Amino acid sequence: MCSNGDTLTSWQTLATAKREAILGSIPEEWRLAKIPTVEEQRNVTGAYIRQFLSAKEVEITETDAMGIVEKTTSGAWRAVEVIQAFCHRASLSHQLVNCLHETFFDAALADAKELDAYFADHGEPKGPLHGLPVSLKDQFHIKGVETTMGYVGWIGTFQGQKGDSRSMTFESEMVRELRQLGAVLYCKTAVPHTLMCGETVNNIIEYTWNPHNRNLSCGGSSGGEGALIALGGSPGGFGTDIGGSIRIPAAFNGLFGLRPTSGRLPYGGVANSMDGQNSVLSVVGPLASSAGGVKLLTKSILSAEPWLHDPLVTEIPWRRDLEAQTKDLIASSQLSVGFLDHDGAVAPHPPVKRALGLLRDLIVQSGNKVFEWQPPPHLLQRVNELTYKTWLYDGGADVRKDFALSGEPWAVQILDIWQERPQADALSIAENNRALRQCRKEYLDYWNSTAASSGTAERHRPADVFVAPCAPFAAARPGRYDYIGYTSVVNGLDLPSVVVPITKVDRTDDVVDTSYQPVSELDKKIQSDYDPEIYDGAPVSLQIIGRRHQEEKLLAIAEWLEGELKKGSLAT
Amino acid sequence: MCSNGDTLTSWQTLATAKREAILGSIPEEWRLAKIPTVEEQRNVTGAYIRQFLSAKEVEITETDAMGIVEKTTSGAWRAVEVIQAFCHRASLSHQLVNCLHETFFDAALADAKELDAYFADHGEPKGPLHGLPVSLKDQFHIKGVETTMGYVGWIGTFQGQKGDSRSMTFESEMVRELRQLGAVLYCKTAVPHTLMCGETVNNIIEYTWNPHNRNLSCGGSSGGEGALIALGGSPGGFGTDIGGSIRIPAAFNGLFGLRPTSGRLPYGGVANSMDGQNSVLSVVGPLASSAGGVKLLTKSILSAEPWLHDPLVTEIPWRRDLEAQTKDLIASSQLSVGFLDHDGAVAPHPPVKRALGLLRDLIVQSGNKVFEWQPPPHLLQRVNELTYKTWLYDGGADVRKDFALSGEPWAVQILDIWQERPQADALSIAENNRALRQCRKEYLDYWNSTAASSGTAERHRPADVFVAPCAPFAAARPGRYDYIGYTSVVNGLDLPSVVVPITKVDRTDDVVDTSYQPVSELDKKIQSDYDPEIYDGAPVSLQIIGRRHQEEKLLAIAEWLEGELKKGSLAT
Repeated sequence: MCSNGDTLTSWQTLATAKREAILGSIPEEWRLAKIPTVEEQRNVTGAYIRQFLSAKEVEITETDAMGIVEKTTSGAWRAVEVIQAFCHRASLSHQLVNCLHETFFDAALADAKELDAYFADHGEPKGPLHGLPVSLKDQFHIKGVETTMGYVGWIGTFQGQKGDSRSMTFESEMVRELRQLGAVLYCKTAVPHTLMCGETVNNIIEYTWNPHNRNLSCGGSSGGEGALIALGGSPGGFGTDIGGSIRIPAAFNGLFGLRPTSGRLPYGGVANSMDGQNSVLSVVGPLASSAGGVKLLTKSILSAEPWLHDPLVTEIPWRRDLEAQTKDLIASSQLSVGFLDHDGAVAPHPPVKRALGLLRDLIVQSGNKVFEWQPPPHLLQRVNELTYKTWLYDGGADVRKDFALSGEPWAVQILDIWQERPQADALSIAENNRALRQCRKEYLDYWNSTAASSGTAERHRPADVFVAPCAPFAAARPGRYDYIGYTSVVNGLDLPSVVVPITKVDRTDDVVDTSYQPVSELDKKIQSDYDPEIYDGAPVSLQIIGRRHQEEKLLAIAEWLEGELKKGSLAT
Repeated sequence: MCSNGDTLTSWQTLATAKREAILGSIPEEWRLAKIPTVEEQRNVTGAYIRQFLSAKEVEITETDAMGIVEKTTSGAWRAVEVIQAFCHRASLSHQLVNCLHETFFDAALADAKELDAYFADHGEPKGPLHGLPVSLKDQFHIKGVETTMGYVGWIGTFQGQKGDSRSMTFESEMVRELRQLGAVLYCKTAVPHTLMCGETVNNIIEYTWNPHNRNLSCGGSSGGEGALIALGGSPGGFGTDIGGSIRIPAAFNGLFGLRPTSGRLPYGGVANSMDGQNSVLSVVGPLASSAGGVKLLTKSILSAEPWLHDPLVTEIPWRRDLEAQTKDLIASSQLSVGFLDHDGAVAPHPPVKRALGLLRDLIVQSGNKVFEWQPPPHLLQRVNELTYKTWLYDGGADVRKDFALSGEPWAVQILDIWQERPQADALSIAENNRALRQCRKEYLDYWNSTAASSGTAERHRPADVFVAPCAPFAAARPGRYDYIGYTSVVNGLDLPSVVVPITKVDRTDDVVDTSYQPVSELDKKIQSDYDPEIYDGAPVSLQIIGRRHQEEKLLAIAEWLEGELKKGSLAT
């Protein structure tokens, strides 16, 4: 065993080597001479990053996933030129905000060449994602590529196990499906160590910044995905979500993101924290620059019939009828949308409050229905308490084991949660499961009761969906993510939720609300974190939450809103 | 507090009073003067019980659920005459084999009158189950009716809680749905205390016998359901299954029974043992005298959209397309059926072996495909080991608490399982969950691999379903249910399974196989339990197991086989 001093040296050496290897994997010609300070360049998206790209590269990388597959499946664009453009832009993105854990551009190029050859031979695409670059959170296993999940102790291992034969050979179920569908994999994106964090920080890549506003976090735990897609380094990818880890980065980076119902998409063979805790399950889901991109990724994975290969996936294919019914509801002004403006625990900051108003106005102007979403008092807090208990069942043993592998220190954002505590026993786990089920039942009863207030013409039809903030803030300031209740409650209830970007923080519109009376010390603290100068330019997004398994309805609504928001130029 | 002596007196007094109250609830004119001994009358079904009924009562009670709703939804039969006939026959059944925990004939009659009035007023039925008597296992809560689940300590309480306001007022979710669909509830059926038993025995009704052969058990834990339906005292009802508790009584009593995938049918508000253990979930499902009856009950519950009211139910309505596709497969001789003749641990007795041969011949003769089902060695045993661990997570604390309420003794069948042991902790539960998921994955991989051997014309199509024994024996001899691996493995894998009755034990056809070499001491013990004289006349059934959520496929196959078996007079 190493002495403490040696251990420290060891983890630092390993982490530095890995960090340099990631940077080193970027071709020389794509290296940036200088990374601007935040004062010099707060927002590195759009015009800033575009300066390092050719016009063709800009065209390709600023086409959304739907647009790309239109070109690649028709032969208008070759898979090779598309992946090259994204490899370049992903390389720039990483240098600007530290969003990648792994690159494997050579393998990607080889795969793209095969796809082009396939198209040339067959005169048709390999699948619905033919030639589409797809980025993956660094929990997915890909042949020839390491998975560290942000742990220094996982470097050179398979999930911390040295000499495991699966190392560099095993592939996650969804990776197999993405290949079969014609997607091109080329990079894996940064996560916070433990995954249990709304920011992205670890001892390898250190801190991933929000590319729209580098004062702020890119969110977490799928933070690398969020930052990369926001910079145009990927048209879409997959993250995971047990407390908000898809929705938070989608929201903070101004993207669309879907947390599906558990069992809708395949988690099989994906590394995880506290794997085997099955009271509140982490789920896999897509993030993309457009609602259509999120839908394309979701539909395509379902078309691969993942239930035939992952025993936890439910046999529900993409339901066109539910999608069509939702469009009809919208067209006939019968969509009913509840609004949860404040969860009773922490108020949203002024920009988030403004976004709620913008979305409400948009829906009202369309002739569809809005009303106040008012589940029973304390039910949301109760769900969150029970949800957090599930994450602490093992008393932190699993993550402590992974930190101990290298002796690396914990990020301050993590440390607070994982104070050593005793494991839960079977009786207390069963009690928590019963209590959570009871809360879900009460929530369902509330949902059904909205038939009285939903404003739909057909009487007795409850709300279709409800809208809520993703977080109290547009994005978290580093080290200040003090409340995740707006996202985690959705995990506790196991409801699907789609994030829709609404607007951006405007220092002149979004002034501090000095009249607001905080409901608690926590609320007061979080309100005090809002500063229009610091926040200016950050994306502001909301989540739309549906009944279990109704992902089709959510995505139809997200596509509609995307179109309406573009028309109204609300999303600037 | 009572002294030990007082406690003993107390439980006996309570149990005797409850037992007498059940008998006492049967109208005088329906009492039997004498219950024959098993030597006098082994089989009390069919001709024996018919002697106590009018011709009209026989006609009604020997019509299956599909036939009954044809009559009641068209107005040919009144709900009142139907429920009266079943109340009579259920009363006779209970006296013959101890199959009831509760009767509420007056409430049933009042409900039936309301249904008749509804039909008279509206000229149409209330729902698809209009006027259909439905029996329920004594885990379901019904307004005005007690739920003891076989525990003396639950008498006069709500699930053991004295003074709970839900006592005699609360209704389970499925009960609400059954009423809404037009079903008439009239009795609750016997269970073994703890529910964790393949026989039905408790200190209230004592022992429930197999009505086809009163040397044998009716099975468990939905044993009262099985015995009652076999005697024609109910056309169909609902049980629950965590290790075989629907399939075992269906099999032992010569009935059809469905264990659905978890989350397909609503368990909400149903009493249970070890509630909150969520690694291997107990599921609700129907038993009936016909495959059509099982299908009717399943389809009808799904038509009530239980996912809107029970948060654990998956939104999958009855899929006519899957049912139709299955019929097409059968008609075009492309159905592929694996046969698991021996699970490697315990061999089936000669009658079960004969049933496997009969079913295989039938499928071959139809032109459809059969092949050997050979999952990886030891996988089945591994699944069972992991499944049994989930039942013991709490070290027996939950059931010990319920026994302690009254001080009643444990049935010998239960005692063996529930030796006091420590609770599992969160890490060992998570480990078990991961191991079980891995087994499910390996099983799925095996299933997919059968494309090579399934014999289907379209290459690469794996088996549709596989057939397996429900138990090594046609039915258990009292106190000798020493192996439940054939059913529990299906719970561990969370696959749907339908039981189909195939034949009956014939003392001349089903001789002891003296050449069989047991594979273990347990196998030897179980083989030695077979005695053609004792077993003669017992029903012999098999289960057909499908992929998750494919209940429609299973029921289409069960209906087809039912018709074929009738044609061939295999089911005598």
